[in-house]
Amino acid sequence: MRIALGLSYHGQAYSGWQSQPGGNTVQDRLEAALARFATRPVHTLCAGRTDAGVHGLMQVVHFDTELDRAPFSWVRGANTFLPPDIAVQWAQPVPDAFHARASATGRRYAYVLLQSSVRPSVEAGRVGWTFRPLDEAAMLAGVQHLLGEHDFSSFRAAGCQARTPVKTLRRIAISRRGPAHEPGAALHGVVPCHWRFDFEGDAFLHHMIRNIMGCIVAIGQGVRPPEWMVEVLAARSRSAAAPTFAPDGLYFLGPQYDPHWGLPTRTAAYDGLP
Amino acid sequence: MRIALGLSYHGQAYSGWQSQPGGNTVQDRLEAALARFATRPVHTLCAGRTDAGVHGLMQVVHFDTELDRAPFSWVRGANTFLPPDIAVQWAQPVPDAFHARASATGRRYAYVLLQSSVRPSVEAGRVGWTFRPLDEAAMLAGVQHLLGEHDFSSFRAAGCQARTPVKTLRRIAISRRGPAHEPGAALHGVVPCHWRFDFEGDAFLHHMIRNIMGCIVAIGQGVRPPEWMVEVLAARSRSAAAPTFAPDGLYFLGPQYDPHWGLPTRTAAYDGLP
Repeated sequence: MRIALGLSYHGQAYSGWQSQPGGNTVQDRLEAALARFATRPVHTLCAGRTDAGVHGLMQVVHFDTELDRAPFSWVRGANTFLPPDIAVQWAQPVPDAFHARASATGRRYAYVLLQSSVRPSVEAGRVGWTFRPLDEAAMLAGVQHLLGEHDFSSFRAAGCQARTPVKTLRRIAISRRGPAHEPGAALHGVVPCHWRFDFEGDAFLHHMIRNIMGCIVAIGQGVRPPEWMVEVLAARSRSAAAPTFAPDGLYFLGPQYDPHWGLPTRTAAYDGLP
Repeated sequence: MRIALGLSYHGQAYSGWQSQPGGNTVQDRLEAALARFATRPVHTLCAGRTDAGVHGLMQVVHFDTELDRAPFSWVRGANTFLPPDIAVQWAQPVPDAFHARASATGRRYAYVLLQSSVRPSVEAGRVGWTFRPLDEAAMLAGVQHLLGEHDFSSFRAAGCQARTPVKTLRRIAISRRGPAHEPGAALHGVVPCHWRFDFEGDAFLHHMIRNIMGCIVAIGQGVRPPEWMVEVLAARSRSAAAPTFAPDGLYFLGPQYDPHWGLPTRTAAYDGLP
């Protein structure tokens, strides 16, 4: 039978999702835990591979097994053998036609950025950082150019294995958390706050969001005008865009599936984002 | 001259605030960083000592020095030599009459608790955990008995150095984050969400909030009725209360000072609480 699992992890300690000979990846840890519980090898396939340092709020995987266990036994069993920064959230039997990657109709990510004259501390490894204040209107104007179907080659990492650089970005939202005008809020000339950037699309190229973030921040800081985004996109060349932004603030919110599969749509970690 | 500093830290890696021979405390790291910047020993005194594993969003310290530097030089200088999970947020010259502990008129703490059938992962070390759902009305009824001036001996750790167990709790607020009724929100019988408990008082005994949290959670889970809090308080004995709750979810929000000192009242980390 085929089982789907949703899991959450803090990516800082791991070399990304994808299994590697060194073994220090989230997939390696998950498969080792499932194998200990199932007392046989378990091979998983995920909805969206994450880079080193990137976090997963609801990664989804599927695997096939002859072992017949109640769904919550898989959750409890795997979590017994997983490290404290990874936990399976739910398990559910699915038809063989379900495929964690191929059945996904979309994927959602969030990037959280600390704006402060001082680097992160309490949230080190969990947020990106800008010490220059960001202009929301300029950023919003810039990201409009990315919406819809485009060749995103300018935002694609050299090692990207996607078959095509053409992807559809359905939604980008920008929000700000933290009071701008409270007395004492401006420290050393910068009003400290958190920015959150939400991305929704059919699929994403390797490093695509971190490369887009580099460009959004350049526009937000006033280093580039919003129209620069058109130029970067049209160039279809990685060298046209800004440097890749830090993985620390990137969260894979999870894949989207047709409701008929009946899978959970969120985890508690969604409410715990910085 | 006397300098006041505000700093933020993630407490997981440290044996608490207070300097120890082993040296692995937040105070040890701060004083070592300040000494490297100032090229002379610096002795700090803090507003509120935190336990091992407890986080500080705005700890305040003061120290005396003959070194004359621009305030932001102290911030930048200290942060250069501090580890990634500790950062000075601001520095400000203060009159000699200012004393980080004695001038504080109150202190604020927050406790963040994950309610989920699955243990924390993305937020491991940053939240407490209950796998049983909590009853907000029962908890609110229970904490009302703690407001005002009381002998808090029942919530006091054995090694507590406070001169008196009589403290004044001015405010306790309880809030919940996360949708209770979204489809798929209930996982394995428990609706996952985050609870936040805010405490404000003149001063707190050693382990006082973690011991109070143990009792609040017992009431929230229905293990004890709200009126049990009256009994615990009246006993004036540690053995009457619940076990000490985990440090992971406890955040020192900082001391309160008279506005005439002109010190900053918040840091960016306030908006990044889980």
